[in-house]
Amino acid sequence: MSKRIKLGVLGGGGDSLIGVLHRVAAYMYDKYEIVGGVFNPIWEENIGFAEQIDLPTDRIYKDFDTMIESELKLPKEERMEVVSVLTPNFLHYPMAKKLLENDFNVICEKPLTTTYEEAIELEKIYKEKNKVFAVTYTYTGYPMVRQMKEMIAQGELGKIHKIDIQYYQGWINPIIHDEKLRKNTWRLDPEKSGISCCVGDIGTHCFDMLEYVTGLEVKELLADFNYVYSDNKMDVDANILLRFSDYVKGIIRTSQIATAEENNFVVTIYGQNGALKWGQENPNYLYLLQEGKPQQVLKPGHPYTKKFSLDGVKLPPGHPEGIFDSMGNIYRGVANAINKESIYDEAFPTLMDGVRGVKFIEKAVESATNGSTWVKF
Amino acid sequence: MSKRIKLGVLGGGGDSLIGVLHRVAAYMYDKYEIVGGVFNPIWEENIGFAEQIDLPTDRIYKDFDTMIESELKLPKEERMEVVSVLTPNFLHYPMAKKLLENDFNVICEKPLTTTYEEAIELEKIYKEKNKVFAVTYTYTGYPMVRQMKEMIAQGELGKIHKIDIQYYQGWINPIIHDEKLRKNTWRLDPEKSGISCCVGDIGTHCFDMLEYVTGLEVKELLADFNYVYSDNKMDVDANILLRFSDYVKGIIRTSQIATAEENNFVVTIYGQNGALKWGQENPNYLYLLQEGKPQQVLKPGHPYTKKFSLDGVKLPPGHPEGIFDSMGNIYRGVANAINKESIYDEAFPTLMDGVRGVKFIEKAVESATNGSTWVKF
Amino acid sequence: MSKRIKLGVLGGGGDSLIGVLHRVAAYMYDKYEIVGGVFNPIWEENIGFAEQIDLPTDRIYKDFDTMIESELKLPKEERMEVVSVLTPNFLHYPMAKKLLENDFNVICEKPLTTTYEEAIELEKIYKEKNKVFAVTYTYTGYPMVRQMKEMIAQGELGKIHKIDIQYYQGWINPIIHDEKLRKNTWRLDPEKSGISCCVGDIGTHCFDMLEYVTGLEVKELLADFNYVYSDNKMDVDANILLRFSDYVKGIIRTSQIATAEENNFVVTIYGQNGALKWGQENPNYLYLLQEGKPQQVLKPGHPYTKKFSLDGVKLPPGHPEGIFDSMGNIYRGVANAINKESIYDEAFPTLMDGVRGVKFIEKAVESATNGSTWVKF
Amino acid sequence: MSKRIKLGVLGGGGDSLIGVLHRVAAYMYDKYEIVGGVFNPIWEENIGFAEQIDLPTDRIYKDFDTMIESELKLPKEERMEVVSVLTPNFLHYPMAKKLLENDFNVICEKPLTTTYEEAIELEKIYKEKNKVFAVTYTYTGYPMVRQMKEMIAQGELGKIHKIDIQYYQGWINPIIHDEKLRKNTWRLDPEKSGISCCVGDIGTHCFDMLEYVTGLEVKELLADFNYVYSDNKMDVDANILLRFSDYVKGIIRTSQIATAEENNFVVTIYGQNGALKWGQENPNYLYLLQEGKPQQVLKPGHPYTKKFSLDGVKLPPGHPEGIFDSMGNIYRGVANAINKESIYDEAFPTLMDGVRGVKFIEKAVESATNGSTWVKF
Repeated sequence: MSKRIKLGVLGGGGDSLIGVLHRVAAYMYDKYEIVGGVFNPIWEENIGFAEQIDLPTDRIYKDFDTMIESELKLPKEERMEVVSVLTPNFLHYPMAKKLLENDFNVICEKPLTTTYEEAIELEKIYKEKNKVFAVTYTYTGYPMVRQMKEMIAQGELGKIHKIDIQYYQGWINPIIHDEKLRKNTWRLDPEKSGISCCVGDIGTHCFDMLEYVTGLEVKELLADFNYVYSDNKMDVDANILLRFSDYVKGIIRTSQIATAEENNFVVTIYGQNGALKWGQENPNYLYLLQEGKPQQVLKPGHPYTKKFSLDGVKLPPGHPEGIFDSMGNIYRGVANAINKESIYDEAFPTLMDGVRGVKFIEKAVESATNGSTWVKF
Repeated sequence: MSKRIKLGVLGGGGDSLIGVLHRVAAYMYDKYEIVGGVFNPIWEENIGFAEQIDLPTDRIYKDFDTMIESELKLPKEERMEVVSVLTPNFLHYPMAKKLLENDFNVICEKPLTTTYEEAIELEKIYKEKNKVFAVTYTYTGYPMVRQMKEMIAQGELGKIHKIDIQYYQGWINPIIHDEKLRKNTWRLDPEKSGISCCVGDIGTHCFDMLEYVTGLEVKELLADFNYVYSDNKMDVDANILLRFSDYVKGIIRTSQIATAEENNFVVTIYGQNGALKWGQENPNYLYLLQEGKPQQVLKPGHPYTKKFSLDGVKLPPGHPEGIFDSMGNIYRGVANAINKESIYDEAFPTLMDGVRGVKFIEKAVESATNGSTWVKF
Repeated sequence: MSKRIKLGVLGGGGDSLIGVLHRVAAYMYDKYEIVGGVFNPIWEENIGFAEQIDLPTDRIYKDFDTMIESELKLPKEERMEVVSVLTPNFLHYPMAKKLLENDFNVICEKPLTTTYEEAIELEKIYKEKNKVFAVTYTYTGYPMVRQMKEMIAQGELGKIHKIDIQYYQGWINPIIHDEKLRKNTWRLDPEKSGISCCVGDIGTHCFDMLEYVTGLEVKELLADFNYVYSDNKMDVDANILLRFSDYVKGIIRTSQIATAEENNFVVTIYGQNGALKWGQENPNYLYLLQEGKPQQVLKPGHPYTKKFSLDGVKLPPGHPEGIFDSMGNIYRGVANAINKESIYDEAFPTLMDGVRGVKFIEKAVESATNGSTWVKF
Repeated sequence: MSKRIKLGVLGGGGDSLIGVLHRVAAYMYDKYEIVGGVFNPIWEENIGFAEQIDLPTDRIYKDFDTMIESELKLPKEERMEVVSVLTPNFLHYPMAKKLLENDFNVICEKPLTTTYEEAIELEKIYKEKNKVFAVTYTYTGYPMVRQMKEMIAQGELGKIHKIDIQYYQGWINPIIHDEKLRKNTWRLDPEKSGISCCVGDIGTHCFDMLEYVTGLEVKELLADFNYVYSDNKMDVDANILLRFSDYVKGIIRTSQIATAEENNFVVTIYGQNGALKWGQENPNYLYLLQEGKPQQVLKPGHPYTKKFSLDGVKLPPGHPEGIFDSMGNIYRGVANAINKESIYDEAFPTLMDGVRGVKFIEKAVESATNGSTWVKF
């Protein structure tokens, strides 16, 4: 018999989409119960939301500090075991820090922090404490991403020599070309949104994904940003050249002005013995290219897939699972790690991945603002 | 504030896939809590499963009759409001009957019953009682299926003149060609599996889907079954000609020996002013064909989709949702119906759809065993 | 050194699309020269067309009979060696007959004749004479169709148990629903167009293709036609059930009211050990499905394809060839047969395939007009 | 009555693929006759090839200079009107130069020359003479490329702000990783193949295509090459950042080590009001993306396409045409230009496009060998 893990939630109330995503993911494998949290800084909305989704309200707290204080007073077996941080980006750091310091496990939305300085501060604490800390790069939970990771790790592509990753959205296109709109969108306001818009929001997924699936590390980069208008201070499009070594290269292309694109995140890895292609909008198709052989289309749930991939599938082949299921796999990985039942080393991106993700954003901005020149990582 | 609906579950314990599907669907919109049920006829497995997923065990009952008896003793506000019937097919009828007779709302897996006689018996009771009764033709919950239904209802295709539906699987192929295997597979044993294998299991989805999305009714059919071997008594492949009128025709093609197909369920509707194509394995793509215009690709979550479709989407375009989300929409529809909050007339297939589904199976078998001749519906 | 084959052409002048298709196909492999013919029954148009495309005009004849008479007077080495018959359907029979009787090789458009009686008459003469006679079921020349044929012949799918062929067009849709148009379209006038519209024009491609690639023969069929309006006498849509044996079945679905479809001809063959799928609109992709393995995508020009397939490809993989290239392969096959250089037994459909094609049309009409009942082939 | 244009051919004999492509293209619209040329520098092979394809041999010349000399002696109305240059790259310049100087129209394979210096030399002569000069960037002849060009020219995408072009092949992958092979492949030998391998061979198609369809001009670029091994001197992979202005940017990604890719040339153009996507391997599909609307799939031959696109289609929608047909359109464009019948300004890429193409290669190499820094165009 395994008790459900006691989960606290910070943020994600009201109409929050990220809130729904995390809640469904938590329920998905019958491994968590939400015991409380702070859904909203405004009390009426906070408690109102808890009532709306019919949660017990005794552990809905008025604010984060109260939550920590009160939870610490509870006997250890009743206390929240893990807390999901779904608050605005600038709150990730202080919340994650305090949670770690008080020995809570953490599930934190990306980006881990808003500066690299904060990120390495968290890294320090994380290394002292022996807690589970996941950063929810949601797309890493897809079965076919896991399949890529395992195939590459087991050498099926041979030496990787080329990486090409694209993350194209179009939602800022109608905003950027309208002077009023572009001046009044928080994402385009550095005060509210940090040093980067496009790279910070989605380019970071490209970076995390490529390091996650290949195990390679970027050594040098050069970024060319497009701001589209001179009165706009934030990148909405970027091409980023990557060097892993003199002879292993890559490119990240990321855009929020790729007109009418939805969420077109595509990962392509070329190795000496084969190549893999995967796209997030059709996540159940993985294409294997090999010289002199017909292209193969791998799909989830088949015995020919790797154990780590199969582990993330609930139904037989042909029953498409989606992004909720991907996040469900990350939550399950965290549950298994907390319960010390995990058999997979890298079932989810950890704080260490989050740290590199933040560093990537800073390095890309450094290159772009420095005339698009090469920057060591 | 809305209390969660108290849900009982019959069957679906252990490794049951259908169990996972229904549980996730129930949790998905924060609208249900599972309060008890009978997961398994064997007590140890029943209670063991409840403990495994950490449910309160006080309302896990030793059998169905005990459950009904005990629940009826509870005050009405504590009693299960709806019960999901996930048991083997032959149990659907007696369970659904008793549940209805005792004023429980019901969510029942397909097929509704194993005979048409039973189905119309249920229909009679259903019409007396004023309860919500859903039959989980899972695929009807997809946003793009809802989109088809609404577009057709609003006349966007004009008069329908041709329907072509395919449901191809290949899983019986390796069984049917092996004498030992085909004699020892319960699906191919009429004693265990009823009068039909392929049509009963998946052909019925085709039939339900076409009537659900078009609102048309089949008037006449002719079925040609393939048994593949003379010692096999069960259909594993069928082509079924459909007539809706003298000038509106259709075809259902369904197979379990469509070698290596996964779950290739494709719906195509041709009308005077346009056509729609949808496939279950890529459920987020709906193709609209119109004479003299470029083909259009509709996707979920866009403002250009119908309200009923948008209602079934949780995240913005480009975040693929899957079959769990489709079932989640059916559960939400039921919750809304129970709470009298539903604004959609046909948010889920009802007992009436289940009745026609069973009739379809009987008619197809009648035609096929009668030399593949025409049968009135 | 190989002299170009002397080709005569009947029909195909002016804006004729079929004329372009055959001319380009003839030139494609540098194996033919057009030496003359009758492009049009009206002399001005006939000679005008020859001048327009700058052919020598000395062997442009005023009519078919004159052509035969004059050509026979020429020394054998100057005479037309093969004649392409691109005239309206009702002329195929008398022209092909006289050509055969006078020892010309023939390339004839489909359908071979307008009645089965005529077809078997031709068959008789064909068997007496030892001439090359191709019927241009154009789609059989695609490299991936050849690949299917060879894979099946070599047993790679094992025993075939299911065939599903679709040919959907939509061009009659805007005509059929308009009373004036449908009464004034020659294709819908039995006087001009023969006993069948949809089955005669495109259903026959389905039939030829399935027999060409599988080598199987239809033994029994049942056809359900849709006429859409009571004042229309011609089929514009048909579902045709096929039986190859008690345990090998198939279906042809063909339509000209499949709204806004272009030329959606799809061939799917399921065998015990694998399945193949091919679609004419993307002719360079052939899908191989095998139980327990990833789907494979075969493409033309790769060393992994069969010799007969490779033989029909002019450029390396990734350089898409199309329908002109497919017809070019048929013409090359004929040239090789005439030159006795052919190494492939069935490099193109012959008169025998044309005969079966005509029989198929008659049998389908017989079934449909007889209440859609089973008919022996 | 229009006489066929007298075409001479240089190179392209024997098994030459480019030879077949040009010959079929020339015949395609009944507008050319091949009157002679030099297929091969070795006389036996030269004359042997002419005999093999049964051409008149009287104007098969022993070498280029003899051809020019002899042709100039012919009366003007018998002389070759246009000459196709299909010889190795280093011969393009001297042949094209002499042809132009002697008032022949020219069709020249790409790259126009091996150095920019030669290219501007040709440009000078071209501007003096009033001759037709096409550079066969073959892919520009596809109907859907023409459609892109026209839609963009007519402002349907609004202002372009982002261009993303990919040309991925994998054929050098098995060579580059084998020391012996990579040292013995002429493409990787700068002595034989010039200053660039990948960019010179296929990157140049990207550059030409983007300028052809958008009408924009690259102002600045930065190239990062991958040589994969230190003993290899030639680029086999390149990412090239493009700037059209401070606020219009683009990227060319090109590779010959994109493992197992065939000829994956993809063009994507994002503008303020819409985006277009086209891929060479499926050349009959053009995708139009517009904010808030379903994606549209445009196909050739429909009345909704532009006249310039329709002009390049021979058969109705659904009859796939391919790369031979694309080249056929270029040849037809040249014929019309020679006959002064062309109604389209840019029916084919001219010498001017060829000049820019050569400049692009030099600039990319300059950037890459200069530490991948920005270079003005």
